[in-house]
Parts: sequence; structure tokens; C-alpha cells
Amino acid sequence: MSSRKQIAVVSKTSGDAIDAVSPVPLHTQIREVLRRRILDGSYAPHSQMPSESQMMEAFGVSRITIRQALGDLQKEGLIFKVMGKGSFVAKPKAFQSLSRLQGFGEAMAPSGYETYSMLLSARQVEASQVVAARFGIRPGDAVFEIQRLRYLNREPISVDVSYFPPAIGERLVQEDLATRDIFVILENDFGHDLTHADLQIEAISADESLARHLGTDEGAPLLRMERMTYAGEQPLDFEFLYYRGDAFQYRLRIERS
Amino acid sequence: MSSRKQIAVVSKTSGDAIDAVSPVPLHTQIREVLRRRILDGSYAPHSQMPSESQMMEAFGVSRITIRQALGDLQKEGLIFKVMGKGSFVAKPKAFQSLSRLQGFGEAMAPSGYETYSMLLSARQVEASQVVAARFGIRPGDAVFEIQRLRYLNREPISVDVSYFPPAIGERLVQEDLATRDIFVILENDFGHDLTHADLQIEAISADESLARHLGTDEGAPLLRMERMTYAGEQPLDFEFLYYRGDAFQYRLRIERS
Repeated sequence: MSSRKQIAVVSKTSGDAIDAVSPVPLHTQIREVLRRRILDGSYAPHSQMPSESQMMEAFGVSRITIRQALGDLQKEGLIFKVMGKGSFVAKPKAFQSLSRLQGFGEAMAPSGYETYSMLLSARQVEASQVVAARFGIRPGDAVFEIQRLRYLNREPISVDVSYFPPAIGERLVQEDLATRDIFVILENDFGHDLTHADLQIEAISADESLARHLGTDEGAPLLRMERMTYAGEQPLDFEFLYYRGDAFQYRLRIERS
Repeated sequence: MSSRKQIAVVSKTSGDAIDAVSPVPLHTQIREVLRRRILDGSYAPHSQMPSESQMMEAFGVSRITIRQALGDLQKEGLIFKVMGKGSFVAKPKAFQSLSRLQGFGEAMAPSGYETYSMLLSARQVEASQVVAARFGIRPGDAVFEIQRLRYLNREPISVDVSYFPPAIGERLVQEDLATRDIFVILENDFGHDLTHADLQIEAISADESLARHLGTDEGAPLLRMERMTYAGEQPLDFEFLYYRGDAFQYRLRIERS
């Protein structure tokens, strides 16, 4: 980043002056200046924010004040920090509704997103204890594992690790997994009547392998979903989905009673 | 940790020998040994796993093999890594169902969990752009902010930052926020008929302030929820909830159609 650009970005002469005698706390004033710059595109998505030292000098405030302002913006999801590198502007996050069970492709298509899957591996494996328990089989029994890297608008967004009964998995890999959702293949091509899924949602940090596939730093926050999809009583498709925390969210409306 | 304990934990003489000529890959065998040790309590929740070097020596395998085994266990949520410190055993995660709108206390009580809130701050503030947009007011208009640190079985589990119309917030701080859910106070004491909430769920990393309150490392993965709760059309309670990723998950069943 050129120093010319950074000076423009934090200049006190640009209409974003802060007022030391205002009753509004300095960190609040600075937060709102930075927020405006993010929302109007002066700080582009994924670009690096000026360093704390640069902002201290530009705003004439202490490091703690800058950190409070940045902390607020991070909590709102507008910026994210990369350990040892500084703060970066978050992209507006893509979101998927959890109001009904949908594959990623069918969920994202109505919003105009382009999705694509790269097949990482497809093979028969021995069921781990977790996978076996979910399918009601014995650990070590055969299951078919399909690992895919999913792209949203040509950027990696998630790693999906899916398990199937072997006969289903072997048929699935004959299909076009690059552009079609597995849910749609299971329903339209194989005639399975998918009914519902049980989900667990949590946050983990990326290990080396997930970080490499997703293009994040090791340790970056990921949204992890564990999902078992059923056709009636029959468990069909058990998945671990790992989404980039900086690029994706789930949304849902729930009722009180 | 004493070296005696670590030697016992990874000893090949303890019935957990691995078989170099088995068709089962070495990393799979090691993963299952480690998993058994976690599930039977030999590795206690929150205890540190032996180092990669110790496991390389004990199992007689390469670092990449140990890392594959640990990576699998991390993806299943059985262990978590702390940058620069190694791998630790995860506790079984507490979970809250998203099938209906509940406060944390009322959601956890039926499972026998003890919950408690420590009030961090309660004050009138100027609405940020995000908060203003959600309430349909102007940025800078007054809202009441309540920050709480929530405990589950006496350990910190989440930081809740809640915003209310000022009149409601000023009444809330007169109530017993340590042991009662705000939802219950709004309904039973204030007579608001809560109907539904809109949720956004994502993963972020802990900043210094969240890490300090939650007792995690800075950068640790957090499950972040943004939630606006309504009484009919009226927006009443807007919250940012930050849960420890290593201790909490949401669960949900969703239907296909």
C-alpha cells in the first residue's frame, strides 16, 4: 500500500476531524469515522487498515483509544484482525438461511451468487466412531467419504466432508459434483425423498489443512456445521462443513412459542 | 505435567499398540487410540495433550502422521489447538436448541446447568449505525446498553451486549440481572409479549477484551450471534452474543420443505 494512499485515508483535513472537547468519547468518534470509510468504500473490502501507529498519529490519540475503536468495529464484523499483520476490512458476508434445509448451491443461487465445487477426494473409508454412531453402524464399517472445496463467486468459502452409505457414494461420484448440489442429485436422480436434517453449529479455528484449502491463516475462525440429513428415518448424508468465518453467516428467524 | 504421566499416556505397552503392516493407515490408528483416551477420560477435559515430538517418539511415526491424527480429532471438536502451546482436550460442549426463542438461563436449566450473569456495565449510549438501523432510529439517538458476562457451571461462557429503548433499559437495571433472564423479566414483570427474533450466526476471533472476559487466548474462535427480539412489530432487545467456541454450540432440526 502506498504511503500517499494511507495519508489520504486518515487525514484530519478530509472532513473527518475529531473533536477533543465533544461529549462524545474519542474512540466513538474515531469508530464512526472508520466505519464511514469502510461503508463508503474508501477502505475497500479485504484491504489492510492503516496501522495503529499511523492512526494514533493521524488522529492525535493514544493506542488504547485506537484499539477501542477497532475493537468495536471488529465486534460488529466490519473488520477482522490477522495475528501479527494488523486489521483488514471484512467483505460483506454471504449468508444462508436456516429456515429450511437446502444445499449450498440452491441456497445461494437466488441471490445471484455463482457456486462451484472442486472435488478434493472420494473414497471408501472406515467409519470413525462419530460417523458410525450417526449412521447406526459399527466403527470400522465401510462408508463413502467425499471431500469438496466449495467456491462462492470464485473464492473458496467452505470445505465439505460428507459421508454416505457406500452404494450411494459410489453412484454420487459418477455425477457432476462440480456444479450440482448433492441434495439435488439424491432427490432428482436417485429418488430419495429428503425430509429433514439435524444440525450442530459451532466455532473452531482452522488447522493447517483447512487453512490451506480456504486461503486463511492457520488459527482463523471457522463456522463449523455438523449435519445429518435424513430421508424419513433413514440417515443418508452426514457432513462436516467448515465455512470461512470472515465470509459467511447463517440467518434464521425463530418464534418464542 | 510430569513426564511419568505423559509416558503412561502414550505408551505402546498399554494395549494401544499400532500395527505398521495393517491396511488401516497409521494416522487413522493413532487417531483412534487418542480418541479412546479422550473418551475414557485418560486425557481429561482441558488437559494438555502430549507434544507432537513425544507422540512421534511413542508411536514411532513421522510428524505428518501425528498431525493428520490430531487434525482429524480437531475437526471433530475433540481437541483444540492453542497457538504456540500445543493441543488440549475439549470439554463436551454445552448446547442450546434454536428450535424456539429462549434466554440462556431458561434454555440451560432443564439440562441441570447452573447459570449466572455478572453485570459488566449498564448505561445510556449513543446508538451506533448498526444499532440505530435495527431499531429504526437515528445514529446518535439514545439507547440503553447492558453488558453481561454469563457463566455456565461457574465458568465464563459468553459476553452479551444488549441494547434497549432507554425507558426499558433503565427499568431493567433495577431488576436482578444476575440470576434472571432478561426475556423473562420483559415478559413476566414488564408485560411485553415477545413473539420472535431474527438471528445471524457467525464465527469470529476473540479480541483482547472478549478474551480477557472469557478466559481464552486472544484470537480464540468465538461463536457470535446477532439477535433482534420483537414483541409483534416492536423491536425490543438487540444483542451481540459472543460464546466460547470451545465450550458451546447451537443445535437445530430443519425441514426440507
